[in-house]
Amino acid sequence: MCQPRACGGRRGQRREKGMVDLVDERVRDGVAQEAVQAVIAKLSSHFGNRLSVGQAVREQHANTITWLANEAPDAVVFVESTEEVQFIVRACAQHDVPVIAFGSGSSLEGQINAPRGGISIDLSRMNRVLSVHPEDLDCVVEPGVTRKQLNEHLRDAGLFFPIDPGADASLGGMASTRASGTNAVRYGTMKDNVIALTVVLANGEVITTSRRARKSAAGYDLTRLFVGAEGTLGIITNLTLKLSGLPEAVSAGVCAFPTIRDACDAVILTIQSGLPIARIELLDEVQVRACNAYSKLDLAEQPTLFVEFHGTEASVHEQAERFGEIAAEFGAGAFTWETRPEDRTRLWQARHDAYWACLPLKPGAKALATDVCVPLSRLADCVDETKRDIEEMGMIAPIVGHVGDGNFHTVTLVDMDDPHDVAKAKDFIGRMVKRALAMGGTATGEHGVGQGKRKYMEAEHGAATIDAMRAVKAALDPRNIMNPGKILP
Amino acid sequence: MCQPRACGGRRGQRREKGMVDLVDERVRDGVAQEAVQAVIAKLSSHFGNRLSVGQAVREQHANTITWLANEAPDAVVFVESTEEVQFIVRACAQHDVPVIAFGSGSSLEGQINAPRGGISIDLSRMNRVLSVHPEDLDCVVEPGVTRKQLNEHLRDAGLFFPIDPGADASLGGMASTRASGTNAVRYGTMKDNVIALTVVLANGEVITTSRRARKSAAGYDLTRLFVGAEGTLGIITNLTLKLSGLPEAVSAGVCAFPTIRDACDAVILTIQSGLPIARIELLDEVQVRACNAYSKLDLAEQPTLFVEFHGTEASVHEQAERFGEIAAEFGAGAFTWETRPEDRTRLWQARHDAYWACLPLKPGAKALATDVCVPLSRLADCVDETKRDIEEMGMIAPIVGHVGDGNFHTVTLVDMDDPHDVAKAKDFIGRMVKRALAMGGTATGEHGVGQGKRKYMEAEHGAATIDAMRAVKAALDPRNIMNPGKILP
Repeated sequence: MCQPRACGGRRGQRREKGMVDLVDERVRDGVAQEAVQAVIAKLSSHFGNRLSVGQAVREQHANTITWLANEAPDAVVFVESTEEVQFIVRACAQHDVPVIAFGSGSSLEGQINAPRGGISIDLSRMNRVLSVHPEDLDCVVEPGVTRKQLNEHLRDAGLFFPIDPGADASLGGMASTRASGTNAVRYGTMKDNVIALTVVLANGEVITTSRRARKSAAGYDLTRLFVGAEGTLGIITNLTLKLSGLPEAVSAGVCAFPTIRDACDAVILTIQSGLPIARIELLDEVQVRACNAYSKLDLAEQPTLFVEFHGTEASVHEQAERFGEIAAEFGAGAFTWETRPEDRTRLWQARHDAYWACLPLKPGAKALATDVCVPLSRLADCVDETKRDIEEMGMIAPIVGHVGDGNFHTVTLVDMDDPHDVAKAKDFIGRMVKRALAMGGTATGEHGVGQGKRKYMEAEHGAATIDAMRAVKAALDPRNIMNPGKILP
Repeated sequence: MCQPRACGGRRGQRREKGMVDLVDERVRDGVAQEAVQAVIAKLSSHFGNRLSVGQAVREQHANTITWLANEAPDAVVFVESTEEVQFIVRACAQHDVPVIAFGSGSSLEGQINAPRGGISIDLSRMNRVLSVHPEDLDCVVEPGVTRKQLNEHLRDAGLFFPIDPGADASLGGMASTRASGTNAVRYGTMKDNVIALTVVLANGEVITTSRRARKSAAGYDLTRLFVGAEGTLGIITNLTLKLSGLPEAVSAGVCAFPTIRDACDAVILTIQSGLPIARIELLDEVQVRACNAYSKLDLAEQPTLFVEFHGTEASVHEQAERFGEIAAEFGAGAFTWETRPEDRTRLWQARHDAYWACLPLKPGAKALATDVCVPLSRLADCVDETKRDIEEMGMIAPIVGHVGDGNFHTVTLVDMDDPHDVAKAKDFIGRMVKRALAMGGTATGEHGVGQGKRKYMEAEHGAATIDAMRAVKAALDPRNIMNPGKILP
């Protein structure tokens, strides 16, 4: 299925047949190569062995997870400061060479690919927690700090950072893709938990987007313009993040439902009733089976909700009781409560490993994770129709989701050597997005657009909105060097 | 102090001496007048008597509340649809005539002034609640709907919209100024409660910024780019808003503290301890005295906190108890609990009337409300130093604030006929902003920038950030027709 790139066959880069539409957007190879070599020469003398042009390193810094082709950058630089990022961006700007920010490489829509080549800036060594302000419930970190590293750092202070995508992603990457996760229903997404950013712009200037105050009405909200921009408007080199106090009491549980619609309806009523639930995650029976096998659980293989409550002892007890009443209304079976912290950790680790748990369901297959998000009132319809589609197509595609926000994922298992299987999966994802859009939803709740979902952007937003996004992009990056080929169709 | 405008003396417009720095930015009067007349002629034939050029109407559509000069537009059009807004913007774009959106006229920093003349679009007749989706906890409204009107509409559905600036502002205006209010500590600001917007851009195109799903990672966050942009990037003609369920139980109370620092420290500890308090408002002893007189209360004239808890009966009881313990640590006196809904309403009405309550403290004076916001850890310092400044200057300037967010206001009473008094107040506000910035804070937590705080923007953000904001502005409004002379210095 994979073959050398059609045009020029740059070192080690591979291109999938379906991706030929991207070729037109690349700068001509001759020009690019000359400019790229000039930049590499300049960076090489500055960064020494922190610059790599080795094929393995370059390929590690492009897409490795999804079905999108691995489109490696021309070089990777391991940076250690904002000034170094600035140095690279200035060098690239001078020669119109693309710059791609790299955090931990866990993005799912090809956000780190280099379809036009260029320089990948690896920010993983910028991994210092610079300050924690317990009184203000905030902290300042470098972009390479991962979410688990930060929470490890915060634990003794009784604080935590609630955003938890499946992977142990870098916080710069999480901001750039507007990540969320299982806690979003209570604590919001990256949009809600970033207070301020330091960003290196395409012109090499360094800006800070906001002060450390909790709220401000002082000018344009540049913070949220860069959150979710996937590095196409600038490179985040420093983040001020909102923290939460570790809850005094936590209670987590699991319960199974007769049908997926019952489970969804229980979610809808829970949210409507204003229960401040911290986590409410849906796994369909296929996903439960996969998790049982992968994570050594023994759950009933039925549509299941994983839930968690945060608060005081009394309020957690009250929330659990109320949720129990709601669940019972929709035919839920007995609850399994995880009272010990280590059992809760095991439960949520299983949830976070859902992606990996799917792989053995179809040995040799690739797992294509995709997500959509719909208004809560349409959740049951959307999940139901998607599930029917999966069955009709005879696919293996477990469903798992942060359903308190109306957000769910399918993990489609695809034999990448079977063109028919690939085409079927692509069509399925296209229908899933179309279905979500028709229900007032979005093509992606949390994975972002990258390369994989660019083609849906106009259907989602309309041409005039895309034009406005293009105008903003052109204003901040007139030469289109910041992660080109992403987000905008 | 007020005098006719220096250049041209457009009908009825008045300009304050300190505002002469704005003159340079106006288009030349000759050109403007010709263009303006062409636009008025075109609009007049389209809108008939829904267009007004009368002096009284024009002056009502410019700043009337603060010390900024009233700079009236050349005409006012009362619109009834997005298409009509589009028609006006297109006509103005064709002739490079400014367009200023008008909601309810309650903004505090001159956001609705027309320093270059132009057309004021009065959106108050676009006041329909278009749909309420109780299952999704959201609604769709026209921009002229006011917050009280919306909450009246929602009451029977058991829902409410929590953002409550002092005035009964329009929701379009509240989005445009990134308003917040007493509930922000629990429910966030407009930034957090707007899901999607319809906006008429400077090029006359109509865009929608997002879908109705609760979260999305699909492209640039245009929603939050327009929230807080004060109509300088486009005109909001439709809003999808997040709603909250009316709490099952509410408990509100008042308690006095020995010093303002004790009150602030009680706030800091409350927030740090993770208590999900719904409202926590500070009034200094001067403001309490004013409220006692204006709203017929009989509170002890000491630094005082107004607090409110939302939740279930049990959780509200628990929260109140915990807060009581914290308050006692800082020497709080006995609590007065308002258990009856009408007493709570009276209490919060008094808080919302704080601005008006100040006026009788210095008969004949104008009340200049300003706000800053600092990280919570600096709140006590900032309020303390501000209070000392007020005393040293011998001014009357009650302090009142949404202190759970580190946000507080002074309402300075100024004799506008006494240049010395005016200068003193201006210097005081300048020092207050400088103090907040030095503490990591912002020049405005919720009033916005308008004309009044433009001069602090570079000190707050830095030149490179302001350049980035300018680039965004130029991208979406290249001819600078959307509310010119606001936000950007």
